[in-house]
Amino acid sequence: MQSQFALRDSSDFPVIIVFAGVDGAGKGATVNLLNEWMDPRWLITNAYKKPSEDEKERPPYWRFWRDLPPKGQIGLFLSSWYSGPLLDRVYGKTDDVQLSQGLERITAFERALSDDGALILKFWMHMSKDAQKRRLKSLEKNELTSWQVTERHWDHWRKYECFVEVAERIIMQTSVGKANWTIVEGIDPNHRSLTVGTIIRDAILKRQNEVQLENELKAKMASENALSSISVEDEDSKTGNISGMTILSMLDMSETIGKSSYQKELIRLQGKLNQLHRLAAEKKTSIIMLFEGPDAAGKGGAIRRMTAAMEARNYKVLPFAAPTDEECAQHYLWRFWRHLSRAGRVTIFDRSWYGRVLVERVEGFASETEWQRAYAEINDFEQQLTEHGVILLKYWVHITKDEQLARFKAREETLHKRWKLTDEDWRNREKWDDYENAAQDMIQRTSTLNAPWTLIEGNDKKYARIKVLRVACETIEKALQKKKKKKKQIS
Amino acid sequence: MQSQFALRDSSDFPVIIVFAGVDGAGKGATVNLLNEWMDPRWLITNAYKKPSEDEKERPPYWRFWRDLPPKGQIGLFLSSWYSGPLLDRVYGKTDDVQLSQGLERITAFERALSDDGALILKFWMHMSKDAQKRRLKSLEKNELTSWQVTERHWDHWRKYECFVEVAERIIMQTSVGKANWTIVEGIDPNHRSLTVGTIIRDAILKRQNEVQLENELKAKMASENALSSISVEDEDSKTGNISGMTILSMLDMSETIGKSSYQKELIRLQGKLNQLHRLAAEKKTSIIMLFEGPDAAGKGGAIRRMTAAMEARNYKVLPFAAPTDEECAQHYLWRFWRHLSRAGRVTIFDRSWYGRVLVERVEGFASETEWQRAYAEINDFEQQLTEHGVILLKYWVHITKDEQLARFKAREETLHKRWKLTDEDWRNREKWDDYENAAQDMIQRTSTLNAPWTLIEGNDKKYARIKVLRVACETIEKALQKKKKKKKQIS
Repeated sequence: MQSQFALRDSSDFPVIIVFAGVDGAGKGATVNLLNEWMDPRWLITNAYKKPSEDEKERPPYWRFWRDLPPKGQIGLFLSSWYSGPLLDRVYGKTDDVQLSQGLERITAFERALSDDGALILKFWMHMSKDAQKRRLKSLEKNELTSWQVTERHWDHWRKYECFVEVAERIIMQTSVGKANWTIVEGIDPNHRSLTVGTIIRDAILKRQNEVQLENELKAKMASENALSSISVEDEDSKTGNISGMTILSMLDMSETIGKSSYQKELIRLQGKLNQLHRLAAEKKTSIIMLFEGPDAAGKGGAIRRMTAAMEARNYKVLPFAAPTDEECAQHYLWRFWRHLSRAGRVTIFDRSWYGRVLVERVEGFASETEWQRAYAEINDFEQQLTEHGVILLKYWVHITKDEQLARFKAREETLHKRWKLTDEDWRNREKWDDYENAAQDMIQRTSTLNAPWTLIEGNDKKYARIKVLRVACETIEKALQKKKKKKKQIS
Repeated sequence: MQSQFALRDSSDFPVIIVFAGVDGAGKGATVNLLNEWMDPRWLITNAYKKPSEDEKERPPYWRFWRDLPPKGQIGLFLSSWYSGPLLDRVYGKTDDVQLSQGLERITAFERALSDDGALILKFWMHMSKDAQKRRLKSLEKNELTSWQVTERHWDHWRKYECFVEVAERIIMQTSVGKANWTIVEGIDPNHRSLTVGTIIRDAILKRQNEVQLENELKAKMASENALSSISVEDEDSKTGNISGMTILSMLDMSETIGKSSYQKELIRLQGKLNQLHRLAAEKKTSIIMLFEGPDAAGKGGAIRRMTAAMEARNYKVLPFAAPTDEECAQHYLWRFWRHLSRAGRVTIFDRSWYGRVLVERVEGFASETEWQRAYAEINDFEQQLTEHGVILLKYWVHITKDEQLARFKAREETLHKRWKLTDEDWRNREKWDDYENAAQDMIQRTSTLNAPWTLIEGNDKKYARIKVLRVACETIEKALQKKKKKKKQIS
């Protein structure tokens, strides 16, 4: 097997290999053989049992995201994201509609990864009912292999027809885009392993050629486009502002609050937030707040007014700047998945996954196809959070261009604030309109029912802080009451 | 508080701040205030409750290692590594000797971190018994704070004298080296917070100056030493070989095995290992194997003969080359702590933490003081593994210098093996004697009772593979029997 070597050298994409199918059809044996053929140093095998306590406290896909291989490595997945939907349907825990929803989540997950360049190969190991019976019997007879067969295996065998029916639906509904299933007949072990091995090798080599061609093409286009880039940019910025009236331009940026009402409100709301965040912790409900907005909009100040009201042991503030190299070798959402907290904690993201459609879009770190598809990926990610019961608050703290200038100048003049101002801030400011356009698009395309944006008029810092706190209290209170009601209805 | 800004800028060291002491003496309040004073974006607060399932499956310090701040950040620790030893002694779960052992672990942990450049500040919040009573009462009276006081707090209060006695011992025994305790009187909240804040700020500024001076000194010495470096190196290499007879030179490198006995033994031992690793998984006993040795010594081949005998879902092979940037911002042991598996798994480290005293020593990536102290740090780390019940196997696969040359040449001539040979391999070969010296020292200083080295005569690959397998089987079998006996004795 030369493919491993080649993959290690190029390291331009991760390879995700899924094994699923009938018990005894040779999933484990094939995985063992692959581990022998390929250098196991570039190959990680992942198998999943029942979720652990830690895993149950996060959305179900957390453990799969955590185990994704970085670029240049191969991840083998046994009893992967397909196990749950398959078994739940066979054992009647879900109906057809729920199965369908589960499969939609799978296709969204796999699409996000393959769009990002991952090579996904899926093998369904098949076997007739008789062949499976013979296989299980022969495993049972041999002293060395009898442990492999449990009562659960026979139970599955008895439900063979049902398994096949659900499997067919799964294979049909999840053979989309670039992540197709290969069905492998499991009777002859030699044939089986050779088939799988050959497919993997060929697919890796093919993808390597594609990536190489793409890179050459990109380099060529980049040099050709260098001249005409200005006119293209102009066109881009026009499309965003087509109506003249945009969401951000409709904000009343003159909103203010007086000093004494500020003090009174601040104390009242902080007291309220303190009670609410303890209640949420008690109920094991996690809260995620994220802050986006122009430089110097006052995100940090607003965050500090929140955290001052909470127990330090209950929250974490996570600032996001450039990704680390481990993060660069993964899908852009990976670095946020990894930071999801255990149940009952408050996590504050100071800048977030929206960087993909803001800074990465404007600065050209992400291509247009990349940031365009990010809206759907982000909506899906947030849906997983809210479905899991997380209370999600998204704040866009806005200021006007003039106000930013005034704040930059003030920072330059105040010794102990000067560190906050960098050359990059000035450079970003030059692209103000691009950033505002990107923000408009973002707000329009990611304000979902479950996860709406809260726009904060930030020219008056005090007003902004109070509004941030007030919305947090209202949202958390409502969400906790809703949960209570749901529980009551059930019991 | 200017210290946060300054820390962010320099980012040369992490800051670890521990809060411990009497309940109600203001640990939480002080931590909250620090979060308000300092920009919470560079400050992570960690508090620990009872270990989770995931945490219980690793050595106790795993969760603290995981939460260590990287360079340039501050980690606040509440109910940290001091909680266990304190409470266990007060509640009589441990005796004085066990307390002492626990505190020794703490000092080793803190020494490893502070030697690595971390700034460690520890605050013991003190309060008289009467003051504590008044404090708890007043917290109980106020509707907003009454939740802070539980029956456990009163229980602790009733044991006040006992707490103070144990606390005094803890403070005395763990005020060593650079990680001293500051005792803070907790009655006056203003005085308290100001004291803590000032100490932190001053300590950070002081350390920054020190680091700057050190760096300047290093740069100066480096330029001065450039001329005389050759003679120094010679002296180094002499000290290692002082006796002429070394452990590695005493190996019988002519050991071989015939082809047919190899085949028979291989199958027998792989069958045995298969049974043993399943038994270990059942008993939730983790196995860690690590492989070190010269390039082309056959580590990869030996590892593949091991993994071929195991279920792919039960083991992971982790190759270690250069650290990632996240790893570079931490103590060198951090990257190995993070990879400790859940209970019952086999983890194979292809190169390991011994890189510190091998490649890093020889190539000068670690200074002499750094690699010298690594022996004790590694012994302590491995003791934590074996105390936790991990079966630890350490292999040094050895070949002679001539054999390495022959293998390098063979690799050059075989198309599908050529990728294995890099320029670096040739460069490393030039330093053969340095590496052998380093290996000698390593084996002598880290062959402990709990974690001895197994030396493998590797000139005959087949012989090496069989010996690796045989020692693995013997060691695992013995360890599992020992555990069984222990259990029997207890019940």
